[in-house]
Amino acid sequence: MAKTLVFGHQNPDTDTISAALAASYLLNNAYHEETEAVALGKPNAETQYALDYFKVAAPRVIKEADTETVVLVDHNEAGQSVANIADITVTGVYDHHKIDFKSAAPMYFINMPYGSTATILYYEFKNANVEIPAELAGMMASAIISDTLLLKSPTTSPMDQPALEALATLAGLADYQAYGLAMLKAGTDLSSRTAKELIDGDAKSFDMAGQSVRVGQVNTVDVEDVFARRDEVVAAIEEELASEDYDTFIFVVTNILESNSDVLVLGANQDKVAKAFATTLIDGRASLPGVVSRKKQVVPPLQAAFEA
Amino acid sequence: MAKTLVFGHQNPDTDTISAALAASYLLNNAYHEETEAVALGKPNAETQYALDYFKVAAPRVIKEADTETVVLVDHNEAGQSVANIADITVTGVYDHHKIDFKSAAPMYFINMPYGSTATILYYEFKNANVEIPAELAGMMASAIISDTLLLKSPTTSPMDQPALEALATLAGLADYQAYGLAMLKAGTDLSSRTAKELIDGDAKSFDMAGQSVRVGQVNTVDVEDVFARRDEVVAAIEEELASEDYDTFIFVVTNILESNSDVLVLGANQDKVAKAFATTLIDGRASLPGVVSRKKQVVPPLQAAFEA
Repeated sequence: MAKTLVFGHQNPDTDTISAALAASYLLNNAYHEETEAVALGKPNAETQYALDYFKVAAPRVIKEADTETVVLVDHNEAGQSVANIADITVTGVYDHHKIDFKSAAPMYFINMPYGSTATILYYEFKNANVEIPAELAGMMASAIISDTLLLKSPTTSPMDQPALEALATLAGLADYQAYGLAMLKAGTDLSSRTAKELIDGDAKSFDMAGQSVRVGQVNTVDVEDVFARRDEVVAAIEEELASEDYDTFIFVVTNILESNSDVLVLGANQDKVAKAFATTLIDGRASLPGVVSRKKQVVPPLQAAFEA
Repeated sequence: MAKTLVFGHQNPDTDTISAALAASYLLNNAYHEETEAVALGKPNAETQYALDYFKVAAPRVIKEADTETVVLVDHNEAGQSVANIADITVTGVYDHHKIDFKSAAPMYFINMPYGSTATILYYEFKNANVEIPAELAGMMASAIISDTLLLKSPTTSPMDQPALEALATLAGLADYQAYGLAMLKAGTDLSSRTAKELIDGDAKSFDMAGQSVRVGQVNTVDVEDVFARRDEVVAAIEEELASEDYDTFIFVVTNILESNSDVLVLGANQDKVAKAFATTLIDGRASLPGVVSRKKQVVPPLQAAFEA
């Protein structure tokens, strides 16, 4: 058995899966560590498209980490990690999110404000002089495409495009734009998902001034496809508010072609959410023009409004 | 004026001063940023020896950061940083300590379990392909020597010796052992320091299970030189316990030649401190054979004993 498990956040997305694969490969090959990439859930439809395309097996799904040490990718906050995170030692982090982290000892913690964790890892491979196999390069390119919406999201950094181009070349992707659009679209087929899967498939929990705030997000090519199912979505959210003791649930429905979002807000603190986006909630719903990034455009104004 | 200030912890030591100089130089030259290395206090005798040897000016001392953004080196905890840290944005961290950090947004945070922050920065220069000027290399070599006690401290990592040797060559230091011993000894001339300077010159504050614990440390070549001044040292600690509202003060006197320490503990929680080191305090004092590193051998057992 591997001595150290490497994994991303709950409700894994393409960057979380790809970064776990990449970090584990790097640690094993550059630093002679004994690690295994695992995941806290099954791949979503978009990630599965990429795995199938590059003929990569999905990482084993774990419920609890059964090693003493772990490496986290694409997250650092305990609330987004494995259930027994408090009982194990985090020896490394590769991430590109805001930080809320404590360790008992010095450790490896590499956080960069880049568009994806895969971008950070691309440069780590370069610095360590380790070659990236074609199929891993394909997964890492898919991660950059996913997190930056083909370099169009405001989370895109100047480091992402050079990394994506180099990885696409290594992966033999002649036209990464066409591949990327097909992959993103594969992730927006929502018809086969239950309402619970819609609201929770990519959801993350945040502590905002003592309030437990859950923020879910789906990508689509037509937000009305989602709001046509409003009744079952509301029922699913209300059930989760009650069962999980969240104070507030914010469901972000993002049109990846038009780069806009609509939000649906349930639970307490509706006034704070409206204030965060300088908008009015009508029946819990509001349009947020130009908003596509939870990390950059949704969570920071929420945090500020809750802490005001 | 620089847009971003770069500085290390309060009560600066050689690594904190050198890492601030190195990080600022790297950011300005590799990333075209506009930064200035500053310090939260005057150099100690050891650091002044290195500054004089390599003809480097001591960084300007600040009381508050008057820029919107700062980069922290050699620390990440707010309690060890500039007074107004809560009002400014930390855009980057280079550190080699345990982590206790929160940010509102993604940022640069590079923490490695290496012997010194200067070691981390040496590899950052290498990765960025930026040449290190001789006098800066000398300061960085001094930082590694200081933090690792000439590669003998248990905090020494496999990355430190190669970095020290490369930096010594760049600095034109033919015999870094001889230079290092002279520098370390320059830092142990305690006779000219007041008792307050002794206990506070290198002290750091820690929150341990809600208790405010202050840990000071001096290096010496004879611990009895310090304990001969016990009465004035105790008086200085008692005054500080009262004025700063610390619960516990732990004063570590380290013999850098023999790699041992004696501690003197005042205030509450003496039982917890004794338990942490599996020893008995006689009149508040105990010998800790083999203990030289506050970070690796003093703080972790204390933290565990307080949290038990």
